[in-house]
Amino acid sequence: MSATVPPLYDILGIGNAIVDVVAPVPERFIADHAMAKGSMALIDTETADRLYAAMPAGTESSGGSAANTCAVAAMLGARVAYVGRVADDQLGTVFRHDIAAVGVHFPTQPLTGGAPTARCLIMVTPDGQRTMNTYLGACVTLGVAEIDADLVAASAITYLEGYLFDPPEAQAAFYAAARTAHEAGRQVALSLSDAFCVGRHRAAFRDLVAGHVDILFANETEITSLYETDDWAIAAQHAGRDVALAALTRGAHGSTILRGAETVEIAAEPATVIDTTGAGDAYAAGFLAALTAGKSLAQCGKLASIAAADVIGQYGARPRTDLTQALARL
Amino acid sequence: MSATVPPLYDILGIGNAIVDVVAPVPERFIADHAMAKGSMALIDTETADRLYAAMPAGTESSGGSAANTCAVAAMLGARVAYVGRVADDQLGTVFRHDIAAVGVHFPTQPLTGGAPTARCLIMVTPDGQRTMNTYLGACVTLGVAEIDADLVAASAITYLEGYLFDPPEAQAAFYAAARTAHEAGRQVALSLSDAFCVGRHRAAFRDLVAGHVDILFANETEITSLYETDDWAIAAQHAGRDVALAALTRGAHGSTILRGAETVEIAAEPATVIDTTGAGDAYAAGFLAALTAGKSLAQCGKLASIAAADVIGQYGARPRTDLTQALARL
Repeated sequence: MSATVPPLYDILGIGNAIVDVVAPVPERFIADHAMAKGSMALIDTETADRLYAAMPAGTESSGGSAANTCAVAAMLGARVAYVGRVADDQLGTVFRHDIAAVGVHFPTQPLTGGAPTARCLIMVTPDGQRTMNTYLGACVTLGVAEIDADLVAASAITYLEGYLFDPPEAQAAFYAAARTAHEAGRQVALSLSDAFCVGRHRAAFRDLVAGHVDILFANETEITSLYETDDWAIAAQHAGRDVALAALTRGAHGSTILRGAETVEIAAEPATVIDTTGAGDAYAAGFLAALTAGKSLAQCGKLASIAAADVIGQYGARPRTDLTQALARL
Repeated sequence: MSATVPPLYDILGIGNAIVDVVAPVPERFIADHAMAKGSMALIDTETADRLYAAMPAGTESSGGSAANTCAVAAMLGARVAYVGRVADDQLGTVFRHDIAAVGVHFPTQPLTGGAPTARCLIMVTPDGQRTMNTYLGACVTLGVAEIDADLVAASAITYLEGYLFDPPEAQAAFYAAARTAHEAGRQVALSLSDAFCVGRHRAAFRDLVAGHVDILFANETEITSLYETDDWAIAAQHAGRDVALAALTRGAHGSTILRGAETVEIAAEPATVIDTTGAGDAYAAGFLAALTAGKSLAQCGKLASIAAADVIGQYGARPRTDLTQALARL
């Protein structure tokens, strides 16, 4: 089916609405607390309290993978909406303010009288790598009821974060959104989010990617985890067959974009690595903002890399600098 | 009277316990919202809500002038305690975590069932200047009851922020702490905080400085406001007569330290100006950490300038870098 009316939004992100708590830690902190460096672990209230007590003084800022992508895409001039669940508390107010302040439409009602707004405790080691521990809180209540079919149908691309496969209700919301998008002639994008998350839900992810996703974002560990191979090239081949468009990132080695027979190699933009939190999210934002603005694949990859480099060069997942000129420059 | 037992703490800070919301704004934002650039204004709930809605996406981190000084002094190796009032809410938990995480003893009970934790909305213009709007919230309940006389008597220097003169109960707490400190043979330090704050309470400040303060911190606009003169040199002369020790900062022009007949000029440390929030607080921290470690006035000024430069070169009022080596290097 093809879309009959122009979309109101370029991108609709659906994800876990999270406030980040970012703190620099020495390398040994990761080992001392038995964390898998560079990954995301889900933690319960008790663990969150214990870990927060042990971690250094931090900085709070709005996060959430798809939410970061939405914020950066909006900063790049895209028309963006977001669906995610915060609670009716102080951190929820912060999240709502920050995403609205960059011009993202965020209609989801907050949860009242339940769990608090989700928090992600992010440890940044001296090499700029981030290791994340997420307490999902109100996010676990995101379900099919929060997916506004009209909003999905009004958006050119519905962008889903892989982390949504962790809260059980969200998986159903995920499929509902994908189905609605395709019925309206729109596209579905997915970010694999995290190799361990892929490992927890591999069969479901494989089914999803092959059957419901048009545009796939993944880094090396995620794509090799999805296809259970050590060989990135083999994993990339699989991805190229499974989806219409794949953007596969390789950190400092740049990224590879696959569309049918077409392969485009993109160099990473130079960056001083301070904190890699949000790098993948910003990459997806730049890519989708350029794609929905009708740019070429090379330009999509270029803007993606510029946005990622900007976020890597500072603490936190969303840029403080004015990105509006970056798209115009392409 | 002189102290008969060695102090348990080098510094006890007493101040408004505040969480900062820091956001970069274009220059015109300051004029559009009728703010006095570089100053601090007190705002009510309604204004706070309106201004927050208008301001860009921000970053939350623990602030409060004396609390910042305490945090930085602790990072520099001083033994530090802090008294200030947060509420029993999410932002209060953030404040408590962050000050405890740097090793500051913070025994003050949070307010329950009243106003929320104080917030300071900080607009950072492209020149790095910060303009602050404070909603005092739970801070207005800080009073004499919160001043633990044993804690004051056990601290070498009780450090008070001028902002305490705004919430009415805090003034009384201020005098009570100063009296207790002197009765125990300890010293009292004061930061003037803000020229407008000095203007609001000038007579009280003059009385306080002349009669109850041993160590005074002030920048140019504050000290000239206190003594109602346009001439910094005249203001400095007054300060030199009123207190035993004065550290007068002049931004990029460095600082001047006065003790009796002694005058020490300190050059500013080179810094890339990103955000001046907390520069004065960090200066006081470096100064007092060195002073209580028995360093010379020149060394106190040097460490003060190093700490200030570190904070100026990043967003936010408390350093992320490891400062522990700075004191040892003197």
